Amino acid sequence: MTVFGLNGDDVRQSVAGVGPVGDADGAAERFARAAWSGIVEPGDSMAGFLVSAAGASAALTMLVEHWSVDRIVAVLGPDTGVDDLGSMLDRALARWRPRLDSRATLRHLRLAALCRTILVTPGDPGWPDRLGDLGPHEPLALWLRGRTDALRETSRSFAVVGARAATHYGEHVAGEAGSGLAGRGFVVVSGAAYGIDGMAHRAALAVDGTTVAFLAGGVDRPYPSGHASLIGRIIETGAIASEVPCGGAPSKWRFLQRNRLIAAVADATVVLEAGWRSGSLNTAGHAAALGRPLGAVPGPVTSPASAGCHRLIREFGAVCVTTVDEMAELVGEPIVMTESRAGERSSEETRVLDALSGRSPRSAADVASRSGLPVDTVQSVLGFLELEDRVAERSGGWVYLPRAK
Amino acid sequence: MTVFGLNGDDVRQSVAGVGPVGDADGAAERFARAAWSGIVEPGDSMAGFLVSAAGASAALTMLVEHWSVDRIVAVLGPDTGVDDLGSMLDRALARWRPRLDSRATLRHLRLAALCRTILVTPGDPGWPDRLGDLGPHEPLALWLRGRTDALRETSRSFAVVGARAATHYGEHVAGEAGSGLAGRGFVVVSGAAYGIDGMAHRAALAVDGTTVAFLAGGVDRPYPSGHASLIGRIIETGAIASEVPCGGAPSKWRFLQRNRLIAAVADATVVLEAGWRSGSLNTAGHAAALGRPLGAVPGPVTSPASAGCHRLIREFGAVCVTTVDEMAELVGEPIVMTESRAGERSSEETRVLDALSGRSPRSAADVASRSGLPVDTVQSVLGFLELEDRVAERSGGWVYLPRAK
Repeated sequence: MTVFGLNGDDVRQSVAGVGPVGDADGAAERFARAAWSGIVEPGDSMAGFLVSAAGASAALTMLVEHWSVDRIVAVLGPDTGVDDLGSMLDRALARWRPRLDSRATLRHLRLAALCRTILVTPGDPGWPDRLGDLGPHEPLALWLRGRTDALRETSRSFAVVGARAATHYGEHVAGEAGSGLAGRGFVVVSGAAYGIDGMAHRAALAVDGTTVAFLAGGVDRPYPSGHASLIGRIIETGAIASEVPCGGAPSKWRFLQRNRLIAAVADATVVLEAGWRSGSLNTAGHAAALGRPLGAVPGPVTSPASAGCHRLIREFGAVCVTTVDEMAELVGEPIVMTESRAGERSSEETRVLDALSGRSPRSAADVASRSGLPVDTVQSVLGFLELEDRVAERSGGWVYLPRAK
Repeated sequence: MTVFGLNGDDVRQSVAGVGPVGDADGAAERFARAAWSGIVEPGDSMAGFLVSAAGASAALTMLVEHWSVDRIVAVLGPDTGVDDLGSMLDRALARWRPRLDSRATLRHLRLAALCRTILVTPGDPGWPDRLGDLGPHEPLALWLRGRTDALRETSRSFAVVGARAATHYGEHVAGEAGSGLAGRGFVVVSGAAYGIDGMAHRAALAVDGTTVAFLAGGVDRPYPSGHASLIGRIIETGAIASEVPCGGAPSKWRFLQRNRLIAAVADATVVLEAGWRSGSLNTAGHAAALGRPLGAVPGPVTSPASAGCHRLIREFGAVCVTTVDEMAELVGEPIVMTESRAGERSSEETRVLDALSGRSPRSAADVASRSGLPVDTVQSVLGFLELEDRVAERSGGWVYLPRAK
């Protein structure tokens, strides 16, 4: 059995450095998924379709052996559910062939092993089931550094995202969100960027919470470089992950596709600060498209850094969230009323209190006239208020009492 | 014909000081409404019902002559639509009788005439039709100082309300809202309070707009007293109005009822800053109950002064509004997109640009490999980008060009 022109032993040896290998078929599939992750750009739905229909290794063979479109279509059978499959495949093969290079795959695996990167593929115990909701856009594999379990623990998680150019206000709110959500046992998922992302990760780490960062480029090259130390701390207790192999550069396209992973793994997404066209709106769009709850934190209308959040609330049905409690409520956790509603007065009580003086005693008839209430109502309300020590009867009538401290 | 024990001449003379008198019946009705406005507290729906069913003067006679409940019920006929009419009337008569005093009505009219106050009643040309939406809670009369037409001009108006304890941020936004809405020809309606209300009035006046204030107490005593000069300026070009006669004190109950008038006369209500239990939420509640569009301006989640606005957005379906344009959109005015969406790139253009360098020329095949796109796609995209002067072909391949300023 050969994969990508390599024999079984070479394949096995190459993938042994990036996690448990399993049997020969398993090793071949893992090797092939590693290869695919270097051949396609993230989010390539034809690759997702072909790999899921034929298996990663068999699909790779079709590509390596220059199978004709007709032959591939014949193998896949008539019920693929893909419209215009032939021409879609034709275009896909054209975009995959320029990157068909087994040496690149071997290099990616070697780089990964050097920095203790684990290859996680669908079906592995650590694979987040929610990524399956991406359908053909599900990543073919993830390259992970850190604690493998951290990825699985995103089954209870919040995506906390926002602008790189965050304000002091935004960073403050990100800190509250990161520590508050981590304190409630949510994994804090974000993108390790400057501004909101970084603050959310940091705040989760500060309360010994778990945090996971999805990167747009390879996990061997922490990006942004100014966050190398933060990313190092995330790796120690949580994880960083990318669908791009080691050595891969973080391009704009990959940032946009990375955002779909953040939205897909999390229970819900909250956007903390975002300009009118912020990349965070892209993450929010993915969350909404996946039917995930979406929250946005408002800010001053005078702050361009909050314009994107207000836009999400106005145009995209994001829930306005102002506290960690309200964020947790997005995923159905009960909200705790911090302010009691006790102490609200009936309208009659309000009118009677309005009509009383603290100094001059007034008769019930006088209070009735001043309050526009019947005398018997006034008498009954005065009785209740007396029980609450809000009023007292003096010689000459009723007075109200200052509220006890 | 006597009203409240006074003969027709006395009645006519008393109401002559507060606006056009009309015929004897008209004078009697105006006098009776003036009397009712001093007998009942604002929002008394039984008074609204009885006056609208029997006429103000006849209803007053029933009260003055101590008609029995049975006799009143017999006169009203069987189809009043009021459940339990007998006991409702019984309670209503009990609450009206303590204030039954013709001397009080004469005093109210005299005070009003002294400060050039006009009595406006339903059906008068200046009466705002929208108040009719309050049904039996429609005010029985309004006492007005200023330009009578200003009240009618609320047919195009915005209620701009908010906290007394406004922050610098809230006052800034209130200024923008007041001047922006007035500049678009809306009458700015508010409550003359400190904070947001005052700023909204001031900003409308500053751009020569019309502004109307509803007061909780009599219009002869500007409240709060610190706004006496502002209220004087409102009277010069706009109007102040109250359903409480001159001399009436602004009680808490009357503030709450006053809020229903602000919400009812305006096309839409916007809340600019409001604490968790602000009185502005009461105005907002009235607006929502009347089916009027309701907007709330978000603010920092760290500011208690914005908590009520966020609550309105979260719990009461208020629209998140951040600009005067968005406020105007509440009443169906088209919104002007201030930021063009032109310039957005297709995903293929993004990927091709990502794969290019500004210095090292790259072949189309190289770009295809780096971008993960077919070579023919890359060639076609490069062609379009060349037309836009975004890329150029050099010896050895393509480079991208810095964006023109």
